[in-house]
Amino acid sequence: MADPKFEIQMLHDRVMVKVERELEERRSSAGIVIPATVKMANRLVWGEVSGAGASVRSVKTGDKVLFNPEDQYEVEVQGQLYLVLRERDLHAVATQQTDHGTGLYL
Amino acid sequence: MADPKFEIQMLHDRVMVKVERELEERRSSAGIVIPATVKMANRLVWGEVSGAGASVRSVKTGDKVLFNPEDQYEVEVQGQLYLVLRERDLHAVATQQTDHGTGLYL
Amino acid sequence: MADPKFEIQMLHDRVMVKVERELEERRSSAGIVIPATVKMANRLVWGEVSGAGASVRSVKTGDKVLFNPEDQYEVEVQGQLYLVLRERDLHAVATQQTDHGTGLYL
Amino acid sequence: MADPKFEIQMLHDRVMVKVERELEERRSSAGIVIPATVKMANRLVWGEVSGAGASVRSVKTGDKVLFNPEDQYEVEVQGQLYLVLRERDLHAVATQQTDHGTGLYL
Amino acid sequence: MADPKFEIQMLHDRVMVKVERELEERRSSAGIVIPATVKMANRLVWGEVSGAGASVRSVKTGDKVLFNPEDQYEVEVQGQLYLVLRERDLHAVATQQTDHGTGLYL
Amino acid sequence: MADPKFEIQMLHDRVMVKVERELEERRSSAGIVIPATVKMANRLVWGEVSGAGASVRSVKTGDKVLFNPEDQYEVEVQGQLYLVLRERDLHAVATQQTDHGTGLYL
Amino acid sequence: MADPKFEIQMLHDRVMVKVERELEERRSSAGIVIPATVKMANRLVWGEVSGAGASVRSVKTGDKVLFNPEDQYEVEVQGQLYLVLRERDLHAVATQQTDHGTGLYL
Repeated sequence: MADPKFEIQMLHDRVMVKVERELEERRSSAGIVIPATVKMANRLVWGEVSGAGASVRSVKTGDKVLFNPEDQYEVEVQGQLYLVLRERDLHAVATQQTDHGTGLYL
Repeated sequence: MADPKFEIQMLHDRVMVKVERELEERRSSAGIVIPATVKMANRLVWGEVSGAGASVRSVKTGDKVLFNPEDQYEVEVQGQLYLVLRERDLHAVATQQTDHGTGLYL
Repeated sequence: MADPKFEIQMLHDRVMVKVERELEERRSSAGIVIPATVKMANRLVWGEVSGAGASVRSVKTGDKVLFNPEDQYEVEVQGQLYLVLRERDLHAVATQQTDHGTGLYL
Repeated sequence: MADPKFEIQMLHDRVMVKVERELEERRSSAGIVIPATVKMANRLVWGEVSGAGASVRSVKTGDKVLFNPEDQYEVEVQGQLYLVLRERDLHAVATQQTDHGTGLYL
Repeated sequence: MADPKFEIQMLHDRVMVKVERELEERRSSAGIVIPATVKMANRLVWGEVSGAGASVRSVKTGDKVLFNPEDQYEVEVQGQLYLVLRERDLHAVATQQTDHGTGLYL
Repeated sequence: MADPKFEIQMLHDRVMVKVERELEERRSSAGIVIPATVKMANRLVWGEVSGAGASVRSVKTGDKVLFNPEDQYEVEVQGQLYLVLRERDLHAVATQQTDHGTGLYL
Repeated sequence: MADPKFEIQMLHDRVMVKVERELEERRSSAGIVIPATVKMANRLVWGEVSGAGASVRSVKTGDKVLFNPEDQYEVEVQGQLYLVLRERDLHAVATQQTDHGTGLYL
């Protein structure tokens, strides 16, 4: 696992997402102020796509994607934590050009 | 997540729904008078569509839609709370023009 | 939700059913005499169709339909309570003209 | 529900079965002698078809059918109790003419 | 249920199997010596086919079939106990002529 | 069940596997030394195919096959214990000629 | 099971993966330092493919693959421990040549 010549390629419908700083903080500490009316278990978060399998159609590397951070698979590569999701578990994408965007911006 | 140039676009069959004021109140407080004969868990509510994925056929931005507010995914954009649903979980739509409406109005 | 110009239209296979007076009474009170040999959880009831989605084939507005009243979604429109069901959860229909009726009448 | 002009018609794959006297007795009373070696939960019973939906192929009104009486939907019409089943939950039929009968008679 | 003119015919993929004497004994009594290393819940048994529905392809009346006796539906006809199974729940058949038999005999 | 003329033939996708001596021992006794780091519930074992149904494509009588011995159906024929599995629950086969073998041998 | 002439061939969509030294250590001991913020149950690990069934399309012997090590089937061949997975349970592959790699290396 120390050979640097092996490049990682996602399989099937899998998407690798870089975990945002905020997400990590919210996980490691209960000290952050969270509005009491919000059920965190259903709160979606944004992350950045780092790789996508050959059957992924709707997102690409660099896009920001909206997903449920709970119960996702994790992998650490070169000291950075990533989540591994399926394309169908992504709810929205945020990009610089859109086809039928919501008119809402991150 | 502070870059304002990323426009949000819903994916697949997902629909983004703006939470109505009444719904938020009913959630944050138990002080509202609710008829005792009503099981709230099955009570549907109305919200307004703010965005829809490319495969959504039956509703569009601005429509009011009927759905079950329990156990839905939430996302906050620019300080406003939205729910993220699948098209198949919408039960009815209310629009200004209808094809085969019920003759009932909101 | 106060704009009277939005007409309600059911989606997909959804059917809106007006709750009969008897059903409401049986729900709100345990004082009604119910034969002890009957397991109420499986007892079907009749209601009247108030609207049906575009994919509904076998019933129309005004038909009386037979369904299980337990665990159904509810919505209140203009002070009247309705249930929202899927067409496949309707077991029988009672109409004034039938193709292959049972010879039994409501 | 008092209008006698509404004729009942079963929907889809539903079959309406008249409950036999024996079945009702066995349900309302624990006083009947039941062989101790028999697990009643899996014991099938016979009833008579009173109506069948348009997609039902293998049974018709008047046939006797074999089914599991547990956890079935019930409806009362004109004071008579009926069960509502799906065609696929019928295990056998007994008729006066058969194509590939078992050679066994009720 | 006393009319002897109604002949029983199995429906769909259902198979009626006559319960062998050994099986009944093993059920009604715990006194039979059973090797301690055997988990009886997974032990398959043999029975004889008494009837089969129109869609059954691989077995016929008179064949001996191998099945799991636990949690099966039962019906009593003329004082004889039968089980009602689906064809897909039969694991093996033993007949006097075979196409690709195991070379093992009952 | 004493008639020696009935030959056993597996049905559908079923495979009959002869239980290896080691497997029986490991089951009947807890005295065998098992490495403490191994979760036995997920440990696969090898057995020999004694018969296969008409739809089985990838293994034949005499092949050694790899499977999970837990919660499988059992049948005893002429005093020998066999397991009955589905082809899809076999993970690997070991044969004397292979098409795309692993280069590993039993 | 001592005959060296039987070569192992994986079936269907199964992939045999050689367990890396780190994985074994992490399993046999709780003494390894694991960051407290990481839920190990969802942490994916890398292993090397030792064989693949005929229907496997996306990985081959010698590739490194990313998978969830929990609740996988295990088999021991010639003293070496392997896991047996389905191709669809592999999330990523790392190879020396890639088509649409992530630009990240092991």
